[in-house]
Amino acid sequence: MKTIIFFFILIFASFHLLAENGHKLWLRYKNTGTVNVVCQMNSATLTIAKEELQNGWRGKDGASFALTVKQDKEIKGDGFKISKNGIQANTELGILYGVYEILRRQYTGEAIDEEICNPSYERRILDHWDNLNGTIERGYAGLSIFWRSGKDSLVVTKKDRELWKEYARADASIGINGAVLDNVNASPLILTTGCLNRVKAIAEVLRPYGIKTYLAINFASPSVIGGLKTSDPFDPEVKKWWKDKAKEIYSMIPDFGGFLVKANSEGQPGPQNFGRTHDDGANMIADALKPFGGIVMWRAFVYSPNDKDRARQAYNEFMLLDGKFRDNVIIQVKNGPVDFQPREPFNPLFGAMKKTSVMPELQVTQEYLGQAIHLVFLATMWKEFLQSDTYQEGKGSTVARCTDGSIYPQKYTAIAGVANIGLDTNWCGHPFAQANWYAFGRLAWNNNLTSEKIADEWLKLTFKPTASEDKEMLTALSVEWNLNFLKPVKQMMLNSREAAVNYMMPLGLHHIFAANDHYGPGPWWGPKGVRRDWTPPYYHQADTNGIGFDRTRTGSNALSQYHEPLASLFNDVKTCPEVYLLWFHHLPWDYKMKSERTLWDALCYHYEAGLQKVREFQKVWDKVERYVDPERFALVQSKLRQQCVNAQLWKDACLLYFQQFSRKPIPYDIERPVHDLKDIIKNDMERLRRRD
Amino acid sequence: MKTIIFFFILIFASFHLLAENGHKLWLRYKNTGTVNVVCQMNSATLTIAKEELQNGWRGKDGASFALTVKQDKEIKGDGFKISKNGIQANTELGILYGVYEILRRQYTGEAIDEEICNPSYERRILDHWDNLNGTIERGYAGLSIFWRSGKDSLVVTKKDRELWKEYARADASIGINGAVLDNVNASPLILTTGCLNRVKAIAEVLRPYGIKTYLAINFASPSVIGGLKTSDPFDPEVKKWWKDKAKEIYSMIPDFGGFLVKANSEGQPGPQNFGRTHDDGANMIADALKPFGGIVMWRAFVYSPNDKDRARQAYNEFMLLDGKFRDNVIIQVKNGPVDFQPREPFNPLFGAMKKTSVMPELQVTQEYLGQAIHLVFLATMWKEFLQSDTYQEGKGSTVARCTDGSIYPQKYTAIAGVANIGLDTNWCGHPFAQANWYAFGRLAWNNNLTSEKIADEWLKLTFKPTASEDKEMLTALSVEWNLNFLKPVKQMMLNSREAAVNYMMPLGLHHIFAANDHYGPGPWWGPKGVRRDWTPPYYHQADTNGIGFDRTRTGSNALSQYHEPLASLFNDVKTCPEVYLLWFHHLPWDYKMKSERTLWDALCYHYEAGLQKVREFQKVWDKVERYVDPERFALVQSKLRQQCVNAQLWKDACLLYFQQFSRKPIPYDIERPVHDLKDIIKNDMERLRRRD
Repeated sequence: MKTIIFFFILIFASFHLLAENGHKLWLRYKNTGTVNVVCQMNSATLTIAKEELQNGWRGKDGASFALTVKQDKEIKGDGFKISKNGIQANTELGILYGVYEILRRQYTGEAIDEEICNPSYERRILDHWDNLNGTIERGYAGLSIFWRSGKDSLVVTKKDRELWKEYARADASIGINGAVLDNVNASPLILTTGCLNRVKAIAEVLRPYGIKTYLAINFASPSVIGGLKTSDPFDPEVKKWWKDKAKEIYSMIPDFGGFLVKANSEGQPGPQNFGRTHDDGANMIADALKPFGGIVMWRAFVYSPNDKDRARQAYNEFMLLDGKFRDNVIIQVKNGPVDFQPREPFNPLFGAMKKTSVMPELQVTQEYLGQAIHLVFLATMWKEFLQSDTYQEGKGSTVARCTDGSIYPQKYTAIAGVANIGLDTNWCGHPFAQANWYAFGRLAWNNNLTSEKIADEWLKLTFKPTASEDKEMLTALSVEWNLNFLKPVKQMMLNSREAAVNYMMPLGLHHIFAANDHYGPGPWWGPKGVRRDWTPPYYHQADTNGIGFDRTRTGSNALSQYHEPLASLFNDVKTCPEVYLLWFHHLPWDYKMKSERTLWDALCYHYEAGLQKVREFQKVWDKVERYVDPERFALVQSKLRQQCVNAQLWKDACLLYFQQFSRKPIPYDIERPVHDLKDIIKNDMERLRRRD
Repeated sequence: MKTIIFFFILIFASFHLLAENGHKLWLRYKNTGTVNVVCQMNSATLTIAKEELQNGWRGKDGASFALTVKQDKEIKGDGFKISKNGIQANTELGILYGVYEILRRQYTGEAIDEEICNPSYERRILDHWDNLNGTIERGYAGLSIFWRSGKDSLVVTKKDRELWKEYARADASIGINGAVLDNVNASPLILTTGCLNRVKAIAEVLRPYGIKTYLAINFASPSVIGGLKTSDPFDPEVKKWWKDKAKEIYSMIPDFGGFLVKANSEGQPGPQNFGRTHDDGANMIADALKPFGGIVMWRAFVYSPNDKDRARQAYNEFMLLDGKFRDNVIIQVKNGPVDFQPREPFNPLFGAMKKTSVMPELQVTQEYLGQAIHLVFLATMWKEFLQSDTYQEGKGSTVARCTDGSIYPQKYTAIAGVANIGLDTNWCGHPFAQANWYAFGRLAWNNNLTSEKIADEWLKLTFKPTASEDKEMLTALSVEWNLNFLKPVKQMMLNSREAAVNYMMPLGLHHIFAANDHYGPGPWWGPKGVRRDWTPPYYHQADTNGIGFDRTRTGSNALSQYHEPLASLFNDVKTCPEVYLLWFHHLPWDYKMKSERTLWDALCYHYEAGLQKVREFQKVWDKVERYVDPERFALVQSKLRQQCVNAQLWKDACLLYFQQFSRKPIPYDIERPVHDLKDIIKNDMERLRRRD
């Protein structure tokens, strides 16, 4: 009988899908009953916590639930303890985080037992590469939510505040507690009073949600906007200018987080312009912030045009400075040694700088991973990075443990993600790009979470129908949804990054993207007069003898920057993981892979696998049409189509380009290219000309 | 031992491929010995015959070979009798044809036993849709070989004569004996003396190769260039004008073939402009040509904008006139009732006009079949047409037998093909488009040849390496070549037309191509103010109820024009061949096909099969790279890539467009579309705007 009823429900129930445009993100909470929140204290943050609980409650109708701010040494920072009956935390923000945890579990079906949840990193920051004119560097989801152009650009409107509040709520719901509001390629104007007033307004909206504001600053600010003759960090006037500026900022924004600095990198000014070193510059600014509790995040993304291996340079430059930085300086290091490529080994600075605080910088915006067009779930890439073993303090010295305070007693622990957020209705351009924002927050909170759990949570929160008021109906539908939607779509997400690696840059290839826009393939690009280390041929080194960048001991020896046994492991072509093969080795086209295939054939099969995977993703998505509201369904479907076209272009372009050197046929069981190389290159050149 | 030697040869032999650009067509003859040609007579044609034999001879070195012009009633017209020792024919042209037959057999390896070869049709004509300014209507291989623009456009150069001679040789080698030198949408200027002088020069070059010249004329010529007040065929002045013009032409070109007339069709003038009928017009011109032995080819391609079914009209209009035409008028009828679509049932006029000479008009140029980009071998389509049984004189009354004189005692038998020839180095744009020129000639000569035999001949003549002077080596390579090149490539050719039908217009769909250029898909196109019967929706009739043009007894009843049992067979959806299903029936989307699939699903699988077939063709071609000279290999490879892209566009466009009506998913095991319908339509509209 029960079975019959069940089928009856399945047949007659339908997924009454509400129109959704993705603006609600993973916060589609809608209560099914009431909750009696017991809380002795009152504050802006606690008010939010109570409201969220009441508006989203899916627990027992009429239940009583206590929010208790009380010190507990088991609970760290803004961590919290949850149970069926309530939340306990050291801070009000901890309570708020606990509320989001309770709601998440109610909606995902995860059990709510007594459990303490502590954050992995103290500072969990989104870096917005937003320009003061409203554009976003490497932004693919519209204009900035913080800045805009025009004569009223600095006027703060009600609409601004509403949007910032929505943004803050989304951040808080996943534990993000900091936001750098402007581009690392920073305008000096950010520190003018007009801009600071706007920052103050933003900070006020963000504050109840526990989000500190930070600013990326231009090292030459004292001379450019301060009217000083120099920005030399040893100049007393300059020091004073920064101290005064800090004082001004903190008078406006008492909980201001600090500065992010890109110095002496890709044309940005820095201490080296004045004959000083990175520590000279960082410490001078740190000293100015110190009295107010501010920090300096100083980027290690530096490389001069003349070094024979760009991948070596951050390490070369910064290792010399280990121990020379103030304790409120954190060196911010990109996950890989080059630049947010689809796959890189970890940057050897992680774990190696033992006397300096180091924080990872991840890129949430998919600059090199298909931007807002490709469906690429980045959690797997970040987990691969965080779990990489540096061996710096013996086996198990993962990047995660080297940066979260488990191994080194950093004064501050932090992690940053370059945001993928803009004015697009759905915030991120691609509905699935929201998952990367979500994943960054979740991993910053807990770097032990699995990609699978994060995808599972996000899908349930973001796509699971919540409309039915009938609990039995909802349960029946849930079984079907889990099987037919959750399972295949989650698997697609988990496979998506490897697919992108395959159709873009497999086997350790890197930096072979199209110039400027970084979207399509461009392994051929290398005009005269351009910095060699900005051109793909510098990285792939393809010729008739073979392909790959020789970073072995007989090559650039970049692998010597890794702790043993990694250096030796990478050095030996037989033990070097094939995913990094061409990152570390230049190998002949007929090099025999573990699969017994030649390198050339293996390369072909990787590109092919990538393309076919996207075709598979299209099938996965089309099959779940009935479980998704029409607007999001159509948008994802359309983007997957574009992704497929682009994957085919990547495959064709790279294989046909490299085939000029390998002079071998593409294995005949592989789907044939549909482009001619000369047309691809011609179109690429035209694209570049149009841009000039 | 023999085996060892054989393998030795295979390993060390290589295909020394000469650079080839395709200009030599299937005429890559190069002798390997001498022949002693015995011939009592002498003439321009016989000189060519002797030279061809000597230059191409691959028979026994030093053999003696006799060419004998001698009447034999077993031999018809320009037919011939071949044997190992020589050729006998009624005419010199028959000798030349016999020579090409001998050479063909020597190069293809076909046995040369005593055999009489007679032509199926007396007139085997190429219609060149060449405009006097040098452009070609529906020409995809460059400009005209006969006409050009500019002030010296009518000057005949040495280069002109050389090219015309090459053209004439190619035609003669496959039995073509007539050429209409100008577009059916004819300029009246073609009959001016300047143009006629050029025609005379062309005729002189073509004559030794047995090719008669014909002209397409404009029915309004008397008034437009003759200065008369009318072109009314009943007007004595008009009649006189045509008689005088005929006289003038025959004084210049004594063997002139006659006129081709497109009258009262798509805006061209005709007798109906003067209240006369087609027979009035055709007969008047026929009378003018009669004294000189000229014929009139009068096209039945007529349709008025107001009829409810365009497919009915040629029949409706011309059946009334059966028996009213002079015996030197031939009604030229396109193979299908609409317009050279990828698949149409035969035009019901074939076999139905019992008292009138009727000739088929085929289209060699691939207007609706991928033009010079798609590899589509048309022999299979033409064979399907020629073998269609009209039942007009009982079972076995095929179109072939109804038109070649087997059934009806026509005074003249003829067949025309719209040429695909231009100034491109390889004549036809696509190397494989040459096969359609070849196939048309061969089928015009012998409508019993199989597509397979024609493809086999053409491939051997066109691609088989002939370089080696070492006979043993050549034999060894030949075995390999037959296995690895001939077999798969021939199969590709034989499958190619069905593939095109599948990815363009399967299951009887027709006329759903893009407006104007007729290359891509355009099922949506139907702006206001355009003749309904020029728009795809008129033909596919898709709506939420179903798809297809109802031509059954309860519909337009076009099928009543077919002789029983065809009319009943087509009328019953259960017996109607599925290849013509939507030509004759409007059916619901969930109509159950013989495969048990719904109509919608079947449609999807057909489109998918077409696309996948092209992907397969790419593999076939890439695999034969070592057997083909680089230039032709690369050109075909590139064109197959474009074909694949276009096949994907066709599939996506049609399925996504029709899906709007079917409202059903594309079966999930099918490769997903990679385009969005709105983008496809937008691009199509932009293309049309650019053209305006």
